[in-house]
Amino acid sequence: MNGAEVLVATALQAGVEVCFANPGTTELPLVAALDGEPGVRPVLGLFEGVVTGAADGYARMTAKPALTLLHLGPGFANGIANLHNARRAYSPIVNIVGDHATWHRPYDAPLTSDIESLARPVSGWVRQTATSSDLAADVADAIAAARSHGGQVATLVVPADCQWGESGPPARPRAITPPAAVPDDAVRAVAKVLSSGEPAALMLGAAGLTAAGLRLAGRIASATGCRLFTEKSPAQVDRGADLPAPERLAYFPEDATRMLGGVAHLILAGARPPVTFFAYPEAPSSETPAGTAEHRLAAPRDDVIGALAYLADLVGNDRPPVPKAVARPELPGGELDPATAAMTLAAMQPAEAIVVNEATTMARAYFSASAGAAPHTVLSLTGGAIGQGLPSALGAAIACPDRPVIAYQADGSALYTSQALWTMARERLDVTVLILSNRRYRILEVESERAGVQRPGAASTRLTQLDDPAINWVSLANGYGVDARSASTTEELESALTAAFPEPGPHLVEVVL
Amino acid sequence: MNGAEVLVATALQAGVEVCFANPGTTELPLVAALDGEPGVRPVLGLFEGVVTGAADGYARMTAKPALTLLHLGPGFANGIANLHNARRAYSPIVNIVGDHATWHRPYDAPLTSDIESLARPVSGWVRQTATSSDLAADVADAIAAARSHGGQVATLVVPADCQWGESGPPARPRAITPPAAVPDDAVRAVAKVLSSGEPAALMLGAAGLTAAGLRLAGRIASATGCRLFTEKSPAQVDRGADLPAPERLAYFPEDATRMLGGVAHLILAGARPPVTFFAYPEAPSSETPAGTAEHRLAAPRDDVIGALAYLADLVGNDRPPVPKAVARPELPGGELDPATAAMTLAAMQPAEAIVVNEATTMARAYFSASAGAAPHTVLSLTGGAIGQGLPSALGAAIACPDRPVIAYQADGSALYTSQALWTMARERLDVTVLILSNRRYRILEVESERAGVQRPGAASTRLTQLDDPAINWVSLANGYGVDARSASTTEELESALTAAFPEPGPHLVEVVL
Repeated sequence: MNGAEVLVATALQAGVEVCFANPGTTELPLVAALDGEPGVRPVLGLFEGVVTGAADGYARMTAKPALTLLHLGPGFANGIANLHNARRAYSPIVNIVGDHATWHRPYDAPLTSDIESLARPVSGWVRQTATSSDLAADVADAIAAARSHGGQVATLVVPADCQWGESGPPARPRAITPPAAVPDDAVRAVAKVLSSGEPAALMLGAAGLTAAGLRLAGRIASATGCRLFTEKSPAQVDRGADLPAPERLAYFPEDATRMLGGVAHLILAGARPPVTFFAYPEAPSSETPAGTAEHRLAAPRDDVIGALAYLADLVGNDRPPVPKAVARPELPGGELDPATAAMTLAAMQPAEAIVVNEATTMARAYFSASAGAAPHTVLSLTGGAIGQGLPSALGAAIACPDRPVIAYQADGSALYTSQALWTMARERLDVTVLILSNRRYRILEVESERAGVQRPGAASTRLTQLDDPAINWVSLANGYGVDARSASTTEELESALTAAFPEPGPHLVEVVL
Repeated sequence: MNGAEVLVATALQAGVEVCFANPGTTELPLVAALDGEPGVRPVLGLFEGVVTGAADGYARMTAKPALTLLHLGPGFANGIANLHNARRAYSPIVNIVGDHATWHRPYDAPLTSDIESLARPVSGWVRQTATSSDLAADVADAIAAARSHGGQVATLVVPADCQWGESGPPARPRAITPPAAVPDDAVRAVAKVLSSGEPAALMLGAAGLTAAGLRLAGRIASATGCRLFTEKSPAQVDRGADLPAPERLAYFPEDATRMLGGVAHLILAGARPPVTFFAYPEAPSSETPAGTAEHRLAAPRDDVIGALAYLADLVGNDRPPVPKAVARPELPGGELDPATAAMTLAAMQPAEAIVVNEATTMARAYFSASAGAAPHTVLSLTGGAIGQGLPSALGAAIACPDRPVIAYQADGSALYTSQALWTMARERLDVTVLILSNRRYRILEVESERAGVQRPGAASTRLTQLDDPAINWVSLANGYGVDARSASTTEELESALTAAFPEPGPHLVEVVL
């Protein structure tokens, strides 16, 4: 076996089933090795941002790493933005980056660059394979690293000669370091705070937002009266039907701080301390109100579920809380705007949908509207690097072929990685894409107003408005082989979704706002 | 004045006229500052790869830096691939990367990352501004760095508080370090080699491939009988009419070495020593044949023109060489294939065109066909990071509004940064885009055959073929607001170009191969 074959065999033994790829010449031995191993499914992206974003969506839905196959420094670089999001979602991903043969590097051929310097900022684990004999161990280590500590990005740089050179047998899967258990004392301290009678809130993140975590949080809230929040940009939240529906912390700091007003104790369960997304002159970075005490129950990569379970036992009885009766939303009708678009989707979305919400300024409207929707899972933009939505939707669809996937997507960010539409068509994925077309970087208009700009000048307008020319999303989607239609009224949106949901996808609906 | 205003004023004083941008919240003070300074033209790209590729095309055609405006680590990362190409083209570019306010960084907000680690691999100069008072000096230094030593990428990270904070006056332009002069002795040594009577070749790169460099090289060749080559992936070559037309070194090593066969002395004039693009098992990295002596007349960032001028004086007389009569190509007619497509373009292209050639496996066909075309300039893919063509074409069109621009573009690489089409439409740029649609990563098929793969398996096919579904380029272009048509025969291609060239652009022609 050559190194590439050993790499693939080692990955397969460790449970890897998918390889999202955009290979080049330095990865061809790996492509040939995939030819010999039908157990690993190759999925082509037309751009590496699609590849890494898909791996992120896949990881969030399976808690398992896919491989990515990337071409030297520039190919890796194209995938960095979505790896940045993946890192902040604690997604397990194993990047395999081909590099020049070891002896070729000193010649500084055109594609030579410092891959490690590019990889470090987005990877929890980085290694460069030295010889083909090391490759099996390196791959096993990379996969174990990706799955350890609650999930992280692992990047392995594999020179071409380590792929084509003879190698030993595949390596067995390595032991995985599980999320750290929270010491009993720490949980008891939080229980004491919750029993103090002072107003408290539980802010959930990471595993705390799975159905299991939410039910435990619901028990704690029912027993103690504490409020429930999700962090600002949760990687994944189970939602709908009778699941406890925490409030989502607002984007702007004054709103977030207002939401937390009156809370004497803020307990972090898998969430990081709330901080502002950006800084503003003379404003604090922390959103925790003055006078509110922060308590950490569990860090995101701790055993959040274990900590919540013990806490629930300590503070309450075993009776499940009375499910909060959140009504399934009704079709709003009327004018099509961000609010009615969100309500229409929430009313119509099929059960067990995965909703990838990269609607930026329109994201909260959907989150609010969908509390009582049919059971579903929402993935959101953890790292703020736009262009995550469409790729992650495709990755989620590969991960969960039995669940309908919905991309609820702002237009400006969709344009970063619209090539994902092509892979959706190629793989016949059941994804319904709603493009919320407001033809502007709305967030920049809002932030500019907040910064006191009264009347934007020519440059501001030129750099925030996307209406000259307006993107024709139906044409663009058709160009990528995706069926599409446009909706300018709530009735047209209803009719488009009525057509799209029952039919195997992909479908795109341009929501003209 | 605040820091942002000082930055813009300093840049304007140093001759900066264009800012290619995709700003975010951390760059809004800079956007507001551009509102107040109409002398710097803001050009929006829908993705940062478009922004940096445009800055590269602009720099190659003007030898002047544009600013790029990029949003923190992820925004910068999206631009890395084309900065990699720019670095290898010695293009002067000044990246302005907004970052969180200095005090906000320790809070590790979602978009926080190590920007310097991302920037170093593609930047000859990197700095992070510490306070708003330092900003004027930092910008002046960055611009001077970009323009020094024959051109390089300079990256300045500017925290938001350094933009909005009060600052001093703008800084005056700094002195630029010009390309290093080649010592007379070194030139005389080369002259001696050329006078030895042994077969010699001059391999040209960098400024050696401008019209001035080529005419000098022509004089040297005429006086000494040496052959002329261009390096493999030249940043820029002036071509056509009576200009000496060096052979372009072939892509594959055996072809390149064969081309250099019989050359006793290979003289590098602005070119780097020829090395293989990729490594192959048991093949040398250098393409200089055994027994051929390499001599360096001038490194790419030296004063290549000065060295060639002195060399021409040493070896010859002042009579210009008899122009080589390369006939203007004729329309080939017949079946549409890569060769006839190239000949059709070469026959029809208007005078003074700038041709951005990212046709990958089809690039050489055009280069061969166009030696006798109307005078033009060819830009090519210096760093091998695909997705450079469309953005650089738009940058070249901004740089040279009086010259027609042609993007001769493979489909697979066009799909990396197709968003550039939108900016072409928005800025009403006279660009004619030919998409050579072969619906495959042809280079990977060829390299796979070379590696001995006889019959590609399912994974290989799945990862190299783009025909399921086929991209509809007319739809895609229309989606971005660009007029487009498809050509399946040479007659249709002629007719499409006949329509496109006289009309202000942009236009796209899908060349179906």
